[in-house]
Amino acid sequence: MRYLSFRRPNGEASFGQLLHHDRVVDLGGAGGGTLAAALHAGDLERRRQGDTFSLEDVVLLPLIPNPGKILCVGLNYATHVAETGREQKDHPAIFTRWADTLVAHEQPMVRPRVSTDFDYEGELAVVIGKGGRAIPKGQALQHVAGYSCFNDGSVRDWQKHNIQFTPGKNFPGTGAFGPALVTPDEIPDLGSQRVVTRLNGNVVQDQPVSDMIWGVADIIAYVSAFTPLSAGDVIATGTPGGVGAKRNPPLWMKAGDLVEVEIGVIGTLKNRIIDEW
Amino acid sequence: MRYLSFRRPNGEASFGQLLHHDRVVDLGGAGGGTLAAALHAGDLERRRQGDTFSLEDVVLLPLIPNPGKILCVGLNYATHVAETGREQKDHPAIFTRWADTLVAHEQPMVRPRVSTDFDYEGELAVVIGKGGRAIPKGQALQHVAGYSCFNDGSVRDWQKHNIQFTPGKNFPGTGAFGPALVTPDEIPDLGSQRVVTRLNGNVVQDQPVSDMIWGVADIIAYVSAFTPLSAGDVIATGTPGGVGAKRNPPLWMKAGDLVEVEIGVIGTLKNRIIDEW
Repeated sequence: MRYLSFRRPNGEASFGQLLHHDRVVDLGGAGGGTLAAALHAGDLERRRQGDTFSLEDVVLLPLIPNPGKILCVGLNYATHVAETGREQKDHPAIFTRWADTLVAHEQPMVRPRVSTDFDYEGELAVVIGKGGRAIPKGQALQHVAGYSCFNDGSVRDWQKHNIQFTPGKNFPGTGAFGPALVTPDEIPDLGSQRVVTRLNGNVVQDQPVSDMIWGVADIIAYVSAFTPLSAGDVIATGTPGGVGAKRNPPLWMKAGDLVEVEIGVIGTLKNRIIDEW
Repeated sequence: MRYLSFRRPNGEASFGQLLHHDRVVDLGGAGGGTLAAALHAGDLERRRQGDTFSLEDVVLLPLIPNPGKILCVGLNYATHVAETGREQKDHPAIFTRWADTLVAHEQPMVRPRVSTDFDYEGELAVVIGKGGRAIPKGQALQHVAGYSCFNDGSVRDWQKHNIQFTPGKNFPGTGAFGPALVTPDEIPDLGSQRVVTRLNGNVVQDQPVSDMIWGVADIIAYVSAFTPLSAGDVIATGTPGGVGAKRNPPLWMKAGDLVEVEIGVIGTLKNRIIDEW
């Protein structure tokens, strides 16, 4: 199954199931609803079907519009660890984003006015379906509702203002998340799916999910050891080597650019870049 | 004025104004309400007064029970920068906590089961009253609703697992926030108020707010440059030198300990330590 969050033609926020790649059946019920709430209730597959819309008639929202927690893994591909010149540690690097940093598929990503150093980071996103704390690695994948694409867009100069990444990762509209939640049964071999980032059609990142230093189950076990996870929480699992900041000269995203994150059967997240104002 | 968040004797979450240090007049209205919502509405001083309770009859909540954003400043006193052996940078270090990490005044702080390295960090907390983005430094203090005490309790080994602090700052129940929101008019000279942390009665941190490298207005200007602030958002402004991790031998908080953060006229935040289970 593939699920989307969107605004109905009347403006209400809702969610639904993708049909044949061009239509969506509304599952939000009267007045709309959220995918996270349906995941929490565990009734996504039993919800009453509402209207069917053409994708052209709805506006997509970030896949989970308001997650309780957005955790991001840093330094999770050896190629990226190497290009940053950092040391690989025994545990993942974890930082956070707020929900107001995210835009949907085909919405513009926003280069802030105060910086030109706006970089892409294509990533596999995990959406939590069943919450928990101290989840054992062997049970971790049972807590996954599905996967999507994530662009952990980074304002590199602000990321390096000091030793914590928060400023560079939290400008409004700098991240992208979607288009669809793809349930695990649709992905026969997650590890072989390639995280491919293209900037204006040129491949700038391309590695299989299996190259992650910490896999999805490792990450869920680690983060749930220190923080409770809830349905709808999002984990961005880290980016492969090839970021723009480490090229010579650096490759920054600028107004008019098209950035795409394609992850095999999981889909393609496309965003144009605009300037803040 | 001094405001508190609390549970009424019937269990409903509410908030109110402190009277004579031992009573609180309920301002939450029918069914209760939140201090953050009242700050957002800007009607805190015009709300209808409800019941008056003895402080003994209510259970305090974290001062803002569910802030949209909790920003923490690291490395904001030269003494603490020096003891960590880190370099002072041109911008503050900013990391985040989630709301589920916080307990109220006189609630236990929780040493997690997976670590013995549980450290105190006494800090001045700022509560945002009026939201904004890219707030100029000269206007920043107009966005402050008031001040309180914060214990940015830190699980040091998890904080150092990798280069981002998130794990060590986000175990449930490791932070404390309160007791009261003290409006700026009650604090004639903020800079001369001393941030004093006591562990079992012994002073372990003691510096005036004026020793902060980045003052309250600097911090609000900096963080609002990258993220929109809203009423009820919380900024923990960093801790003075004297943390337990940098003592020889290290001084960790353990079950039964009493930790206090006293900041002059702003009040005293007291918490016992318990083990997670």
